[in-house]
Amino acid sequence: MARVVVDVMLKPEILDPQGQAVQRALPRLGFDGISDVRQGKRFELEIDGPVDDAALDRVRKLAETFLANTVIEDFTVKVES
Amino acid sequence: MARVVVDVMLKPEILDPQGQAVQRALPRLGFDGISDVRQGKRFELEIDGPVDDAALDRVRKLAETFLANTVIEDFTVKVES
Repeated sequence: MARVVVDVMLKPEILDPQGQAVQRALPRLGFDGISDVRQGKRFELEIDGPVDDAALDRVRKLAETFLANTVIEDFTVKVES
Repeated sequence: MARVVVDVMLKPEILDPQGQAVQRALPRLGFDGISDVRQGKRFELEIDGPVDDAALDRVRKLAETFLANTVIEDFTVKVES
């Protein structure tokens, strides 16, 4: 059993109100020197069997069709060691 | 300017209804062989200046006090190259 991580983030050109809310709150909370915050989603998938190219292709297809809205979001698929 | 990533996930012993909803939908959508799904949050922070130990300590403090609820969530801080 292996873990594959799918990170889904809004595309850079899409406004991110959640990230902006965090960023604006930081100086008030005493944290300076952070110029931008983007907030996204992280999915940890436990895969049965070997994580070969076919399995990763399936996860990529799954991310593209179901986990991410590719009109406004980018995703990355990584195997976690 | 460097990017630091904070991943926030529910602790393993905490029920994750979002992840469960995704997992249950998978067979219906034609994706088999995925035994567990956990959903969490990913924050990408753009840090001004060098990312040294002091800066990472500040980000860890920020994650602990503000980005994660450490009663039910774990977080990891990583510098992204």
